[in-house]
Amino acid sequence: MNEIRTLAERAKSASRRLAAADRSIKDEALRRIASRLRQEVDTIGRANARDTERARAAGMADAMVDRLAMGPKVVEATAQGVEHIVTLPDPVGSRSGMQQLPNGLLVGKQRLPLGVVAMVYESRPNVTIDAAALCIKSGNATLLRGGKEAKESNQALGEILKAALEDVGLPADAVQIIPPSDREGIRELVHLTGLVDLAIPRGGEGLIRFVTENARVPVVQHYKGVCHLFLDDGCDHAMAADLAVNSKAQRVSVCNSLECLLVHENEAETLLPLVVGRLQEEGVEVRGCPRTRQIVSTVEVAGDDDWGAEFLAKIIAVRVVPDLDGALEHVARYGSNHTDAICTESHRRAQRWLREVESSCVLVNASTRFNDGFQLGLGAEIGISTSKMHAYGPMGLEGLTAEKWVVLGQGQVRTS
Amino acid sequence: MNEIRTLAERAKSASRRLAAADRSIKDEALRRIASRLRQEVDTIGRANARDTERARAAGMADAMVDRLAMGPKVVEATAQGVEHIVTLPDPVGSRSGMQQLPNGLLVGKQRLPLGVVAMVYESRPNVTIDAAALCIKSGNATLLRGGKEAKESNQALGEILKAALEDVGLPADAVQIIPPSDREGIRELVHLTGLVDLAIPRGGEGLIRFVTENARVPVVQHYKGVCHLFLDDGCDHAMAADLAVNSKAQRVSVCNSLECLLVHENEAETLLPLVVGRLQEEGVEVRGCPRTRQIVSTVEVAGDDDWGAEFLAKIIAVRVVPDLDGALEHVARYGSNHTDAICTESHRRAQRWLREVESSCVLVNASTRFNDGFQLGLGAEIGISTSKMHAYGPMGLEGLTAEKWVVLGQGQVRTS
Repeated sequence: MNEIRTLAERAKSASRRLAAADRSIKDEALRRIASRLRQEVDTIGRANARDTERARAAGMADAMVDRLAMGPKVVEATAQGVEHIVTLPDPVGSRSGMQQLPNGLLVGKQRLPLGVVAMVYESRPNVTIDAAALCIKSGNATLLRGGKEAKESNQALGEILKAALEDVGLPADAVQIIPPSDREGIRELVHLTGLVDLAIPRGGEGLIRFVTENARVPVVQHYKGVCHLFLDDGCDHAMAADLAVNSKAQRVSVCNSLECLLVHENEAETLLPLVVGRLQEEGVEVRGCPRTRQIVSTVEVAGDDDWGAEFLAKIIAVRVVPDLDGALEHVARYGSNHTDAICTESHRRAQRWLREVESSCVLVNASTRFNDGFQLGLGAEIGISTSKMHAYGPMGLEGLTAEKWVVLGQGQVRTS
Repeated sequence: MNEIRTLAERAKSASRRLAAADRSIKDEALRRIASRLRQEVDTIGRANARDTERARAAGMADAMVDRLAMGPKVVEATAQGVEHIVTLPDPVGSRSGMQQLPNGLLVGKQRLPLGVVAMVYESRPNVTIDAAALCIKSGNATLLRGGKEAKESNQALGEILKAALEDVGLPADAVQIIPPSDREGIRELVHLTGLVDLAIPRGGEGLIRFVTENARVPVVQHYKGVCHLFLDDGCDHAMAADLAVNSKAQRVSVCNSLECLLVHENEAETLLPLVVGRLQEEGVEVRGCPRTRQIVSTVEVAGDDDWGAEFLAKIIAVRVVPDLDGALEHVARYGSNHTDAICTESHRRAQRWLREVESSCVLVNASTRFNDGFQLGLGAEIGISTSKMHAYGPMGLEGLTAEKWVVLGQGQVRTS
């Protein structure tokens, strides 16, 4: 227990040096990480093989073992990801909104790193490098607490990160791997108010809930994506079908894929056969409300559990709703504040959707798959936040910083 | 216990209607609050008298009873504060950063209310009105949990708030007074993930710590202000003395008043007699480090507890430091991330101060007393946040909102 506090104290101390570091030094550290990853591809491979062998022996499912694997291709892609972060602007120190007040003070805001970011994650070891690179670039020290299953891989990657920081004269303590133990270790980590500025859990619902319920430090959640698409009265049918198919089937295992289609009852009779047919052609199992099944007989029954479900599979729930208000009600009740789209030709209803759906990303006539840091132009992301506070939606370098007020005077004092 | 959940569920439901409400309706609700406050000044006075009598009978100190009092003058000032909020811009729905991507999507951010804000506060009953008015204007439903000592006053103010909302057709559940019970009630309130979007504790250190340690919902802390002023090598002595006196003595009981003066050793011998003399003329007790006491013999001994102390009184700690790094070290160790100023003529050291001090407000050649929502041009504030996440420093209407991503397309789908 006390060991984790000691690591966090060292991170806090290192965070001050990292916060003051110029972009050129941080970028050079990232380049060293990329080149060391390539140099050490065999070392990483051997450590990773020990993890995957242990996982297989313990009976882990093949799909999970795949997510754990870090062979030469994944290492190269990870190195390229780090090099891409080099090209992104450094948010730290940037000022905005500077304006002069009547008393001559020039006031505005300046970006600063958050300080110490604790990542708590599972499975994929390349998260260790992605998260460390984003934190270094944004001037944050980081405590990386990966899962037991990737223990040896994460340890090997941690050595590379430390060596790269030392190469450029930054404190090695700016990135620290916390050895996975039990959940008590996570609890200790997220209790460290004054040392840890932000905790980011990434993984299954159980892990995210555990961190949220036990944290005393701020948490940004990257929670499940129960994404909706509403096909409005008078929408373009060809566009509606294209958006439904792309949102659902372009990639099914990701948080911004579609889970529930809502159809205006005025369009249902003509639009549902088209859309359901296109989805079924893609191998998607369609589960519908009674009205949907009246119109298309091949649709399965949607049970109560299917509304609000995150299938992450070739399954979709379809419901006919009376109007926009019915769609808004459904999203407010069953959505997860992730991504919700409308397909409409109505300006008024598009504006209402944008205003009244409170999700992290609201779209008009576009695929839900666009809620992604790369697609929205952030250049990189540490995850997609479903917490309204601070960063909402894709969280990039700017999301890893805060803004303080700066006041530039010539000796001004207050008189009232 | 279940009663609080029921109130929160009603608040959540009301928050959707408030989020969709136009500015004109919200402003009209505020005008009604102001006029009803004036109409009901006697009712408020009678309820308040019962609170203050009970407090006196229980032996509450006069200064505390004063903070509890809500006579006609306080009611009028509160009503004027609400009318001032009418004049401020409505942040909800404002869009920023809209830009077109190569695929033709127009993407940017749009402000939305946080949803349900839980205020947990002590003593001054006018906070009930101030907080409710800021939350209504920013489209948030609010749960107001004041202290036992102001129970009857808060109940009377709650009736006025509900009546004003009903006057304009907004749901009365958008503002709800939670009857004060024990701290278990607060714990229940800040455990309501999915119903409460933000908890704001305002009061003593014990209350803030209790909320932070027990919350499962996000918390923005308005913590203590241990503010520093560093008088740099080569600074203007007259300006240094004016800033020290104004920061410390203009008003001593507030969080942005000065608690510790740091003096560069090259200036100490000539500057300290001037500054200490000016502070002593204002009746301030000066407690110094050994070097300070060598230079000015009338200075008291500063004990270990005086560094990092929030005196909120006519007391100041003074320390001679070897250089800027010494000052930065002291602030990093003893500061509270509230407000820290430098008095300097050096551009390079001013820039380092702005960059390396991580407090919510960093100032060059200006009084610490300027870290205030009104002084910095926000128009109003719900408090000064010392939590880096989300809103840092004075938190106004914008701080009570979040930003979601909006994506406007013409049928775009993802191809990779």
